[in-house]
Amino acid sequence: MALGSEHTLKAFDEDIDRLRGLISEMGGRAEAAITESITALTRKDLGLAAHVVANDHKIDELEAEIEKLVVQTIALRAPMADDLREVVAALKIVGVIERIGDYAKNIAKRVPLIAESSSIKPSTLLPAMAQVAGEMVHDVLNAFAARDASLAEAVCGRDKVVDDFYNSIFRTLVTYMMENPRHITQSAHLLFIAKNIERIGDHATNIAEMVYFAATGQHLPERERGEHPTEPHEE
Amino acid sequence: MALGSEHTLKAFDEDIDRLRGLISEMGGRAEAAITESITALTRKDLGLAAHVVANDHKIDELEAEIEKLVVQTIALRAPMADDLREVVAALKIVGVIERIGDYAKNIAKRVPLIAESSSIKPSTLLPAMAQVAGEMVHDVLNAFAARDASLAEAVCGRDKVVDDFYNSIFRTLVTYMMENPRHITQSAHLLFIAKNIERIGDHATNIAEMVYFAATGQHLPERERGEHPTEPHEE
Repeated sequence: MALGSEHTLKAFDEDIDRLRGLISEMGGRAEAAITESITALTRKDLGLAAHVVANDHKIDELEAEIEKLVVQTIALRAPMADDLREVVAALKIVGVIERIGDYAKNIAKRVPLIAESSSIKPSTLLPAMAQVAGEMVHDVLNAFAARDASLAEAVCGRDKVVDDFYNSIFRTLVTYMMENPRHITQSAHLLFIAKNIERIGDHATNIAEMVYFAATGQHLPERERGEHPTEPHEE
Repeated sequence: MALGSEHTLKAFDEDIDRLRGLISEMGGRAEAAITESITALTRKDLGLAAHVVANDHKIDELEAEIEKLVVQTIALRAPMADDLREVVAALKIVGVIERIGDYAKNIAKRVPLIAESSSIKPSTLLPAMAQVAGEMVHDVLNAFAARDASLAEAVCGRDKVVDDFYNSIFRTLVTYMMENPRHITQSAHLLFIAKNIERIGDHATNIAEMVYFAATGQHLPERERGEHPTEPHEE
């Protein structure tokens, strides 16, 4: 701490606790949005989809509140070194959680566009993929709260599973489109949904990398940031 | 400034100047990546596409350098109020520029997957769309450098043009897929490219909102953040 007084230290710790609480709440909302958007998709539940879309602003509001608290904490407590790095990391992490919430919202927004169609295929792979991605978000927030580097590393490892799901779904959907040209529009929406889930996995991984770095001071072995898997190229 | 001395003030101004210079460089690189990725696509130039992918790390490195400078500036100069808000805004803006660079990289990565196919249709709309999105990025960075609220507002206005392009391209591609099932894979890649450009427009708009707020203290009239246009629903 810059001032080093008992009082400032205690105030800073309280700020950090509040910050962690808000981030945890925000992360919980993003996680719920993922689960609900996929449930809305599989059950063709337009009400639940609308609920996810309508609730996204709460995630955005939490982000704004956290940003305000970070700026206040920096201004009033003048944290140094590790403490400053931690509040700046918090700022970056909530930016990523906000994006995860956006992806869930985007999934929900596509539900009405798909729901009309009678039967679209890959309804088993998508929820399984979303579950892995949702668990990654859940675990990385726990890793952040506990400053647990090995849990963060484990989250990164699971991104490959999400990418493999994505590649499977891409192949399945392209085949389905070829066989059912009438369902191309709906299948295209499903393709975007799969891509959104894939990006959620990427973002959970990005947070995991930040948590790992914050906890250990080391970067995880090279992995391209925000990497998309290369879809199979078939014709 | 917290300390208010001549010296600290001058040092802070120098930091801000350096910060603006780095952000401008980073933005210029992202802008170039957009143009080059689309040129690579239209000319089926795999070398240029590979160049865009390989160069993305320079954008990431600039982001890391800017973050470091922001943390240093906060720690050493202890900026208050407007100054603190400005450096925190810089942190958010570079996060968005990094994402814009990622989208351009993702476009470039799809070039080899599309290049083999003899003739894919919407080659006129995509470059036109990318040009508008690229100009938005260009203008919003100028608006940031000049703290120009009206230029920032004008950038937001153009997002609708990008969204309209996207909807046209979505329709065209779905029709094309129906008529040419053999080209569904390539068309799906083009769909993702169109979506990437649409997201670039969204992100330029997000930066414009931040610039507008920083310059005026007012929020632009409500517009959902990171909003996707709803694709037409046809079958």
